[in-house]
Amino acid sequence: MTNFVPTPTVPAPDIVRCAYMEIVVTDLARSREFYVDVLGLHVTEEDENNIYLRSLEEFIHHNLVLRKGPIAAVAACAYRVKSPAEVDAAEAYYKELGCRVERRKDGFTKGIGDSVRVEDPLGFPYEFFYDVEHVERLTQRYDLYSAGELVRLDHFNQVTPDVPRGRAYLEDLGFRVSEDIKDSDGVTYAAWMHRKQTVHDTALTGGNGPRMHHVAFATHEKHNIIQICDKMGALRISDRIERGPGRHGVSNAFYLYILDPDGHRIEIYTQDYYTGDPDNPTITWDVHDNQRRDWWGNPVVPSWYTEASLVLDLDGKPQPVIEREEKSEMAVTVGADGFSYTRPSETAGAEGFKLGAQL
Amino acid sequence: MTNFVPTPTVPAPDIVRCAYMEIVVTDLARSREFYVDVLGLHVTEEDENNIYLRSLEEFIHHNLVLRKGPIAAVAACAYRVKSPAEVDAAEAYYKELGCRVERRKDGFTKGIGDSVRVEDPLGFPYEFFYDVEHVERLTQRYDLYSAGELVRLDHFNQVTPDVPRGRAYLEDLGFRVSEDIKDSDGVTYAAWMHRKQTVHDTALTGGNGPRMHHVAFATHEKHNIIQICDKMGALRISDRIERGPGRHGVSNAFYLYILDPDGHRIEIYTQDYYTGDPDNPTITWDVHDNQRRDWWGNPVVPSWYTEASLVLDLDGKPQPVIEREEKSEMAVTVGADGFSYTRPSETAGAEGFKLGAQL
Amino acid sequence: MTNFVPTPTVPAPDIVRCAYMEIVVTDLARSREFYVDVLGLHVTEEDENNIYLRSLEEFIHHNLVLRKGPIAAVAACAYRVKSPAEVDAAEAYYKELGCRVERRKDGFTKGIGDSVRVEDPLGFPYEFFYDVEHVERLTQRYDLYSAGELVRLDHFNQVTPDVPRGRAYLEDLGFRVSEDIKDSDGVTYAAWMHRKQTVHDTALTGGNGPRMHHVAFATHEKHNIIQICDKMGALRISDRIERGPGRHGVSNAFYLYILDPDGHRIEIYTQDYYTGDPDNPTITWDVHDNQRRDWWGNPVVPSWYTEASLVLDLDGKPQPVIEREEKSEMAVTVGADGFSYTRPSETAGAEGFKLGAQL
Amino acid sequence: MTNFVPTPTVPAPDIVRCAYMEIVVTDLARSREFYVDVLGLHVTEEDENNIYLRSLEEFIHHNLVLRKGPIAAVAACAYRVKSPAEVDAAEAYYKELGCRVERRKDGFTKGIGDSVRVEDPLGFPYEFFYDVEHVERLTQRYDLYSAGELVRLDHFNQVTPDVPRGRAYLEDLGFRVSEDIKDSDGVTYAAWMHRKQTVHDTALTGGNGPRMHHVAFATHEKHNIIQICDKMGALRISDRIERGPGRHGVSNAFYLYILDPDGHRIEIYTQDYYTGDPDNPTITWDVHDNQRRDWWGNPVVPSWYTEASLVLDLDGKPQPVIEREEKSEMAVTVGADGFSYTRPSETAGAEGFKLGAQL
Repeated sequence: MTNFVPTPTVPAPDIVRCAYMEIVVTDLARSREFYVDVLGLHVTEEDENNIYLRSLEEFIHHNLVLRKGPIAAVAACAYRVKSPAEVDAAEAYYKELGCRVERRKDGFTKGIGDSVRVEDPLGFPYEFFYDVEHVERLTQRYDLYSAGELVRLDHFNQVTPDVPRGRAYLEDLGFRVSEDIKDSDGVTYAAWMHRKQTVHDTALTGGNGPRMHHVAFATHEKHNIIQICDKMGALRISDRIERGPGRHGVSNAFYLYILDPDGHRIEIYTQDYYTGDPDNPTITWDVHDNQRRDWWGNPVVPSWYTEASLVLDLDGKPQPVIEREEKSEMAVTVGADGFSYTRPSETAGAEGFKLGAQL
Repeated sequence: MTNFVPTPTVPAPDIVRCAYMEIVVTDLARSREFYVDVLGLHVTEEDENNIYLRSLEEFIHHNLVLRKGPIAAVAACAYRVKSPAEVDAAEAYYKELGCRVERRKDGFTKGIGDSVRVEDPLGFPYEFFYDVEHVERLTQRYDLYSAGELVRLDHFNQVTPDVPRGRAYLEDLGFRVSEDIKDSDGVTYAAWMHRKQTVHDTALTGGNGPRMHHVAFATHEKHNIIQICDKMGALRISDRIERGPGRHGVSNAFYLYILDPDGHRIEIYTQDYYTGDPDNPTITWDVHDNQRRDWWGNPVVPSWYTEASLVLDLDGKPQPVIEREEKSEMAVTVGADGFSYTRPSETAGAEGFKLGAQL
Repeated sequence: MTNFVPTPTVPAPDIVRCAYMEIVVTDLARSREFYVDVLGLHVTEEDENNIYLRSLEEFIHHNLVLRKGPIAAVAACAYRVKSPAEVDAAEAYYKELGCRVERRKDGFTKGIGDSVRVEDPLGFPYEFFYDVEHVERLTQRYDLYSAGELVRLDHFNQVTPDVPRGRAYLEDLGFRVSEDIKDSDGVTYAAWMHRKQTVHDTALTGGNGPRMHHVAFATHEKHNIIQICDKMGALRISDRIERGPGRHGVSNAFYLYILDPDGHRIEIYTQDYYTGDPDNPTITWDVHDNQRRDWWGNPVVPSWYTEASLVLDLDGKPQPVIEREEKSEMAVTVGADGFSYTRPSETAGAEGFKLGAQL
Repeated sequence: MTNFVPTPTVPAPDIVRCAYMEIVVTDLARSREFYVDVLGLHVTEEDENNIYLRSLEEFIHHNLVLRKGPIAAVAACAYRVKSPAEVDAAEAYYKELGCRVERRKDGFTKGIGDSVRVEDPLGFPYEFFYDVEHVERLTQRYDLYSAGELVRLDHFNQVTPDVPRGRAYLEDLGFRVSEDIKDSDGVTYAAWMHRKQTVHDTALTGGNGPRMHHVAFATHEKHNIIQICDKMGALRISDRIERGPGRHGVSNAFYLYILDPDGHRIEIYTQDYYTGDPDNPTITWDVHDNQRRDWWGNPVVPSWYTEASLVLDLDGKPQPVIEREEKSEMAVTVGADGFSYTRPSETAGAEGFKLGAQL
């Protein structure tokens, strides 16, 4: 039985959007090569231990902090809130939830002021802030525009054992579900949740957690994503292309998953859809629909289901990973015990399978 | 020891380009759906038993003939030659080779005049013609331009057991090699050969043959190919997407392989490079280079190596398939006995492998 | 002196986004050809006098209503509000403003319920509604995806004599300014204002008004817009391409302006930027900056400045057009009395002009 | 009466393709900025007085030589021939034509061996060579691939007073006409002529000459061209964008014309069509067809008709410019005395004109 997170009596903070992720990397120089030289993120500032990076169209100080540390992990998923008062609201909200909460008037990272970090009920290090240094928005700096340019931070994706529990908690926090994956027994395998008017600011992927599945950046067009693959081929690091490129069923976005030198997963993503209407229709996908994760039916590689980044508590120690008890999406869809269909009308055993798609 | 095809004393016919393929399909209506409704090829003419199709920028009668028949197979790979006299040259050339040759002044298909068909030394049904009906070139008919528009026939790809033998025969016929795949023992796994100024008009893939591996059509841009995948997803026939989309190592083209209702393989292909200079450099790829067939290191599905279409003799009977004796590319690159590397400098056993890429 | 619209004491309705425009066309069949056959908008419903059209990713009944009538004009610019109660709020708000207001529980067009229409202080027919019929969202219907597919309604653009007056009124109504065009004397020539998280839901263009300058639809990528031009060329209606394609300075979007059979102007638009943060920086452009309206310095054709559609009052009669008293953007930037520069640092008279750009 | 160039009795050299242009620039550093920093051409070699540049997919030493000199001009249009013997053929051919001919066994520029340069019958400095240094072909160096990457040299375009005379001379030289522009009086305004299998290796534009109209480089896709415009906007040199981007009627290519610091015109060009068949249909456009030069009917700026680069004789002195005697394309299509139509069926005076298109 799911043990739901209680709903606080104080109002949830008014979240604007996912804003940045702070990740710990074990070799700062190698990570700089990956994020700056390969992916072309723009350096706002850097020192011996930290690099502050932003995407082309960003006007706040950073979307990604690389921090040097002994263990590769995610130190924070930070959301921007609507006003300074909403930082207070966040603090009160998580205190009532009984979470560990830390408030820093000068922020946890450079460029950002008054913030609160929490160990949230799912075990993730969430941050909420409003005050931030504005920097040059590079939108029209086409002299800096690379062929695979990353233009916006799009979303986070978190691995958690109990998706309905996480979903209810995030709905309380003001997120709305755009899409989810279920089966006919009522098991939820994943859910996509948004504050800004896109398919998600974060998603919950059912699995052993808390772990961070990935952080995603958007490009303008599909060819920008293809160029990233082509460049990784040219640099002979194609083994760091984990999955894709492809078209998602869920979200309809064109996507690519790649791995940084520590194994942190980055998604490159473009062209999902507008979700800003209050009655935006929620789409539920059958877990056995072979087009749900890749609209072209291309197989999801096993590592994509099993690997993810550790997340840190507020002392900087990795959170222990709890096993998912419900069925795993990988198990029910691939291999001897799983099944997937291309055409839902077909009877089990006679579904259209992609040739060679079953690992 | 390879038993090479003798070099005739008469001159080879001057071939301009690959021009059309005639394929036998078992259900004409279903094939029409695939080639016309899904892929958007343009119907020049059709009757109860045949459909004559062309790509957008073609000005000759057809690039593909679908013919109704009992067994799915390829009936002809047709090349256009430079002048009517070259059809005579082709007839004389193959007669000297001792091949079975059939000349028809009125052609073998509608829209095409004086032609010669042969059972060539590799067992393939080759046709040579010059005389052809010109039809409306639809280049600027953007009112007919679909999102996944096929604009040109690009090439054939043939499966043959002995690639060096086939290569020498095609070089005698005037083809030049743009790229090939070999290993350090001198085994050739595949070769790409051209007359027009692109990477190939035909390629030889080492395997049990004679069989036809695929016929390829070109699009203008990469997004056109992505649209074909998206549309096949929308039509719930994504199980007919066999491999890709991806970027080839060989040819550098962006590609996709799909299967028609009979299992005939179609490649959609764009943006290879100019090969028209007489000293155009030949590129040789190591068979163990994991980026040779997909620049991003994505795995080649087994069916792509093993499946191909039967080809017909001049009586319309399938040619018997002879087994390849040399090593198979699939065996030496995947599975327990094969290996592939991402970075060639690495020692065997420590190569960069793509996660999940080994089936 | 600008006579500002008073700020009501009741709260402004909470607007979600621009949702649809109702336009009067004089020949319904010809307009259908343009919007359906040429532009590929999807017909939700149609009868003898009306056609209800939507873009690919829309889930509400329509984004555009074509209504047959004697005089080409715009009958309504409709906004969706956040809840049914916000329709009441809109009614109260405009009543306090002293505007003519009409409430219809069954809506003014098919597919839409309880709505209020007003003659707003600028003379425009604004509508506010929440209740609407949901229809199939065609996002993944790639079988229907044309090469120039329009995927979303993006914005309206209104011509009004006094831009600061209109801007203050719309700010009261909850719109925020993303960008504007001014000169060093403090004259405002245009302003872009948004509710959803893009550059605008509507813009104000200084000129004789009230008139409707255009309605804009978004595509996914730039090539989709190029295809619309190519198709209009193929149909030999390139004289209906009024301006572009080009890259806007303001908004950074890739754009095209075309004219329907009645001269209503349609913009096709893609890839502006995220504006959802509360402190999203406002960009002010100098009216003399030759890259403000076209980042490549291509000239704005005079008709674009001078022509626009009449708008109707609630009786269906055209609103009288009032002349702009302030300087006109066309006059100050082109011709003998105007000037524009490419490089702002240059002194007047020595600016970089585009060759041949001055009409 | 046109005084045609006599047809030599010796065979014409077998030309493969246009290969490089040598241009004289007055400020080498400024030109380097333009061609290397803005356009991203790749430097093969450079010294105090010369820069040798190539496009991404080129394997010969250079496609463009920038040479420092006192007067901006074109020093050579060089064609590659099929074998060393064809250089002899070129020498003999032009000697018989009575042209000034200079043979240099070590070539005229670095990287190129045995060559012949001539002052051809039209007054242009043509070069023919076979021997050339091969350099790294950067086709798959996606780590060097810029967002506006130029991948191939595509063609030259020459201004000459008497187009039929030039055309007959080039046909004798083995070029074939793919398209031309004429009027109903039989006046030829321009002709496109090819050796390689594209629309042209060179074109003749009727006007005062000999002058060089432009040299053109190809990109892979249309968005690459748009990026060049965007970058020139970002660098505030949009006044060097002379015309476009647009879709040509002739050639069907997507195009852009820009001006280097000396006013040499560069075209960026993509996606024309295959012309390799011996009976490739020639397309003749009516000079009054408003879609011939821009398929979207966008106006050709006057400078595009009137401005061009001087060409040098073999002593390095500018060739005198001879006036065109026949009607000018600009005069017959724009302004008070000219006319253009959008729909050919319309009677003169009632043609569809683009709003604002007539300068």
